[in-house]
Amino acid sequence: MTSLFDPVSNATLALTMALIEKPSVTPEDAGCQSLMADRLAKIGFNIEMLPFDDTLNMWARHGQNKPLFCFAGHTDVVPSGPVEQWHTPPFTPTIIGDTLYGRGAADMKGSLAAMIVATERFIALHPEPEFNIAFLITSDEEGPFINGTVKVVETLEARQEKIRWCLVGEPSSGKQLGDVIKNGRRGSLTGHLSVKGIQGHVAYPHLADNPVHKAAPALAALAAEIWDNGNDYFPATSFQIANIHAGTGASNVIPGELKVMFNFRYSTELTAEQLQSRVYAILDKFGLNYQIDWTYNGLPFLTDSGDLVEATVAAVEKVRGITPRLETTGGTSDGRFIAPTGAQVIELGPCNATIHKINECVSIPDLTQLTDVYLQLLVNLQQRLSA
Amino acid sequence: MTSLFDPVSNATLALTMALIEKPSVTPEDAGCQSLMADRLAKIGFNIEMLPFDDTLNMWARHGQNKPLFCFAGHTDVVPSGPVEQWHTPPFTPTIIGDTLYGRGAADMKGSLAAMIVATERFIALHPEPEFNIAFLITSDEEGPFINGTVKVVETLEARQEKIRWCLVGEPSSGKQLGDVIKNGRRGSLTGHLSVKGIQGHVAYPHLADNPVHKAAPALAALAAEIWDNGNDYFPATSFQIANIHAGTGASNVIPGELKVMFNFRYSTELTAEQLQSRVYAILDKFGLNYQIDWTYNGLPFLTDSGDLVEATVAAVEKVRGITPRLETTGGTSDGRFIAPTGAQVIELGPCNATIHKINECVSIPDLTQLTDVYLQLLVNLQQRLSA
Repeated sequence: MTSLFDPVSNATLALTMALIEKPSVTPEDAGCQSLMADRLAKIGFNIEMLPFDDTLNMWARHGQNKPLFCFAGHTDVVPSGPVEQWHTPPFTPTIIGDTLYGRGAADMKGSLAAMIVATERFIALHPEPEFNIAFLITSDEEGPFINGTVKVVETLEARQEKIRWCLVGEPSSGKQLGDVIKNGRRGSLTGHLSVKGIQGHVAYPHLADNPVHKAAPALAALAAEIWDNGNDYFPATSFQIANIHAGTGASNVIPGELKVMFNFRYSTELTAEQLQSRVYAILDKFGLNYQIDWTYNGLPFLTDSGDLVEATVAAVEKVRGITPRLETTGGTSDGRFIAPTGAQVIELGPCNATIHKINECVSIPDLTQLTDVYLQLLVNLQQRLSA
Repeated sequence: MTSLFDPVSNATLALTMALIEKPSVTPEDAGCQSLMADRLAKIGFNIEMLPFDDTLNMWARHGQNKPLFCFAGHTDVVPSGPVEQWHTPPFTPTIIGDTLYGRGAADMKGSLAAMIVATERFIALHPEPEFNIAFLITSDEEGPFINGTVKVVETLEARQEKIRWCLVGEPSSGKQLGDVIKNGRRGSLTGHLSVKGIQGHVAYPHLADNPVHKAAPALAALAAEIWDNGNDYFPATSFQIANIHAGTGASNVIPGELKVMFNFRYSTELTAEQLQSRVYAILDKFGLNYQIDWTYNGLPFLTDSGDLVEATVAAVEKVRGITPRLETTGGTSDGRFIAPTGAQVIELGPCNATIHKINECVSIPDLTQLTDVYLQLLVNLQQRLSA
């Protein structure tokens, strides 16, 4: 007798639990990738470890010279936070009812396990599929994203190894498994603004130039600006001031400089350059003496149509009986580093309600169904290519 | 032969140098007051030391039951700053040409010495004058002004000892000795504003409420507001944001709270309560969720006319041959604690160009003339009362 809730008979559950047991807080991999590599090597994957500084990365590929499907994911997890606030130890996978608890259960060790098991089953069905399969796995997705996917993609690009389809295992689902597929992400652009004034004593304001006073109406204008109205796939571009600082602490000194850090999450309706020009125009209009250093966190990307989107939507429909919504909301993901190579990129994974939180968990039936959805996606791609 | 530049024959210069030698950085008195007390006791002053915590204060009074003239001053000085930047050691009084260098030369050991010497001469001329003379001296004028003049005034008020005329020895002069007499000071009111928002992730702005965005137009309105137009004695009330802070440091977190510290320097056209009401009205207009804690640094005060102003102006005119301007500009002084008792309060002292700076100095001819002005002021008061 097999049971959904028995790791002995539920391969995805067993592998998810084995991965959660390894405390792979960024940038530690803690042995997760070698566990995955063992499984993939057994079904014919070529394993390539690509460590960069403190980050471990794995590029595992099955087959050569055919269109490449890549599953992109990460073994690292965010810190547990206060352990005493967890009702079970964060790195001890624990089943309570139909739920598996543990750090990384939803983000994204469940996805890793589901795709390993789905791939094992798919290769068993199709030992020589019409396309190649790869796993791009990093231990630095939750961290500074310097030595992870970025570096692996650079390596692949240098040897002209191209990904056609990329499925990122990020927990995209909202209320139920498969209700949302991310088919893109907004761009993220950070501005480090310094507004110069002239420091002085508050008793002699005519000898000083208060940069906070000068900047206040300009910041109000930036906050009120409508940057775009979004489009079918993207919400409107949003601007947020994340940090603002000026002053010596004393009540009688007019500050000489104001520092503001702001962030755009922007749609494909605009480029970073257009946003920058408009920021400059607004600041210039208010006559500020300023400087901005920019950090480009990621370009927006969108896979609005194509065989990957179609095969994934069809897989969810078949397994789950619901039609997923295509969305581009939320934070960034490593998809931003893969999309610029020309790959179609989508994201599909478990429900994200508990990620990065105390008592992170995943539904065990969802783990099983996610495995089925991933398998069906591979089957759908196979059918398209053999048709 | 007497020489202006010889401490042996120039009593004010000698006493100023003796005081500078004592390194009385706030709240240290370093023996200055006992040196002054010795001199005053010799000419019949009753000496009362009024220490409060770390602060030494002296109340020295000559005579009883007559209208009281009080000289208010401080023995403490601000720190020297980097000693190596001074061309002579800050606590070694040094004459170069016609100038005396040393910390406190202008603020305000020169004034203390000038008034001691002027008083000695006046008492020699009028052993029983028509008015009493007092010295209110503290070692905490440059510091937190908690245990200095405030506490002495409380003590005097408690025993109903009233000052009619108060001359504060602050360095009021600008380009030349006596060109400016301060006949009042602006009020100083500090607001500690906290604007509440809702913290969140920049990727989900609809779930957060950015207090910087909400506050920016309100701060712009506060900075643009014309609070009053001043009056004959006061410049227009000024508002300055001295400090502003929000944010966690991260670029992807919308801050939950904005903190702003602002300061008013205000004229007698407005009360602190009126300023507060207008600040509330502006913040309310922009719908902010906020709280303000207020610090009352000092009420504005003004001595626009009366026998003290007239006697002082006449003394400057007679000794210096110029007519001083009455001004209320600049920072605060201990006059703010004495004026509320009903005293007429003015400030007259040396040129202030070097105060609180490296290489603080005073002109030696000015020290002599300041002594003459102070003496003439006492003579003028005596004449008025005997008329």
